[in-house]
Amino acid sequence: MQRYAIGIEFCGTHYRGWQTQQEGVPSVQQTLEEILSKVANHAVQLHGAGRTDAQVHATNMIAHFDSPSERTDRSWIMGVNSQLPKDISIQWIKRMDTEFHARFKAIARRYRYVIYNAPQRPALLNKQVTHVYHELDIPKMQEAAKKFEGTHNFESFRAAACQSNQPVRHVKHCTLTPHGPFLVLDIQADGFLHHMVRNIVGCLLEVGQNCYDVEHIDTIFAAQDRKAAGVTAPPDGLYFIQAYYPEQFQLPNIALGPQWLNWPI
Amino acid sequence: MQRYAIGIEFCGTHYRGWQTQQEGVPSVQQTLEEILSKVANHAVQLHGAGRTDAQVHATNMIAHFDSPSERTDRSWIMGVNSQLPKDISIQWIKRMDTEFHARFKAIARRYRYVIYNAPQRPALLNKQVTHVYHELDIPKMQEAAKKFEGTHNFESFRAAACQSNQPVRHVKHCTLTPHGPFLVLDIQADGFLHHMVRNIVGCLLEVGQNCYDVEHIDTIFAAQDRKAAGVTAPPDGLYFIQAYYPEQFQLPNIALGPQWLNWPI
Repeated sequence: MQRYAIGIEFCGTHYRGWQTQQEGVPSVQQTLEEILSKVANHAVQLHGAGRTDAQVHATNMIAHFDSPSERTDRSWIMGVNSQLPKDISIQWIKRMDTEFHARFKAIARRYRYVIYNAPQRPALLNKQVTHVYHELDIPKMQEAAKKFEGTHNFESFRAAACQSNQPVRHVKHCTLTPHGPFLVLDIQADGFLHHMVRNIVGCLLEVGQNCYDVEHIDTIFAAQDRKAAGVTAPPDGLYFIQAYYPEQFQLPNIALGPQWLNWPI
Repeated sequence: MQRYAIGIEFCGTHYRGWQTQQEGVPSVQQTLEEILSKVANHAVQLHGAGRTDAQVHATNMIAHFDSPSERTDRSWIMGVNSQLPKDISIQWIKRMDTEFHARFKAIARRYRYVIYNAPQRPALLNKQVTHVYHELDIPKMQEAAKKFEGTHNFESFRAAACQSNQPVRHVKHCTLTPHGPFLVLDIQADGFLHHMVRNIVGCLLEVGQNCYDVEHIDTIFAAQDRKAAGVTAPPDGLYFIQAYYPEQFQLPNIALGPQWLNWPI
């Protein structure tokens, strides 16, 4: 039996998120398990680094599976990618020790949220960015973003349906960077609550439109009540970009996505 | 009666090109005419700067229409964009003299073709780039691209179905630039023949994979026979990015698309 880690890119538009749902509801995990099972010639179960909301994308979702079937790395990737729908693609595969677990060994996850700030809505990236036509006070939003860094009780920023047993998370960084008409939130934490990134973005957008002062973020944290925070930002602009593991596992160090934002750095 | 010029961004994936086709075949022109007619409250006919193939995109297709209906520029744009499908969007509108004609006054058109050169296929941009996993000799391709500049008989580079009455075109520039994993062909000419850009890209990809020497391009030109050239490259990576008009018309000078390639320049 061999354990494998894989890195997956997917466009989430046509899926109800990464994780398998009830029958008949399309998920990335189930779609991928079906094809992996064909290539492996036995039922394959995937374990992903994290869940994602419906319509949310990923550039490097990390998952693992076990298989006794002997295939070269190239055969796994080519076999699976040639049968997957075009909006899911395996980017890499690595043979792992059974000590590795994509979910339980992950020490941090990282997301990006891409806002397209322009008067008219985009046609080409219409499912891959969140369009905001209001003028935004970016320095003010950047100041507000800093308030999410550190260890906080994120009770006000999680969905009512959130199943996590405690709301405290450690945010390593939360930065907002303009790239031409794009405004990119980059956030890394030990873990995320349901809707946490989208609720943070919703609040930052309200601050950027001068509905509130930067200090309003403190008030929302203090309330420990979802109703204190702003609306949940749409899923289209959200990307799961990385999961981090202890050094010993030596996972491939690939460029952070989405790739079209990265090329000139 | 007022003449208007508009700039249109569209994702061509779900359309059989810009121009109206027979009934039941989706085209961008017809989709836009239907909504414009609703907003204008009379039948509106659009004249575009050029035709595009099925599945080809545009970041600034220019078209014009006439209407006696009084609307502010903002009302035209908001009225139309709120009713159009998400994959088409008007970016700007400008009131023009009746001397202006989007097709007949255009003195040049410009396209970009985006190749994504990486071992695994992309999931997120799967309809917006052309994936090539072969290693490419980029300097060699750049040298070959230069051979398309100037005035040539493009008989070998046009589709059998091409309706143009003569195959000579003047190519102002034809450059190939790598941006990270993306390789972008930028080509401007007085006009283009059917499949001309995609046939040029097909030949450049064969040169880049060392199927041929750079000089093979001269041989293809000399043959004046479509069978001498390479395969037609797929439509997904092709973008109509600009039409040029005489100075007097003063059309808006917007950034060349696709926007996600432009931000850091």
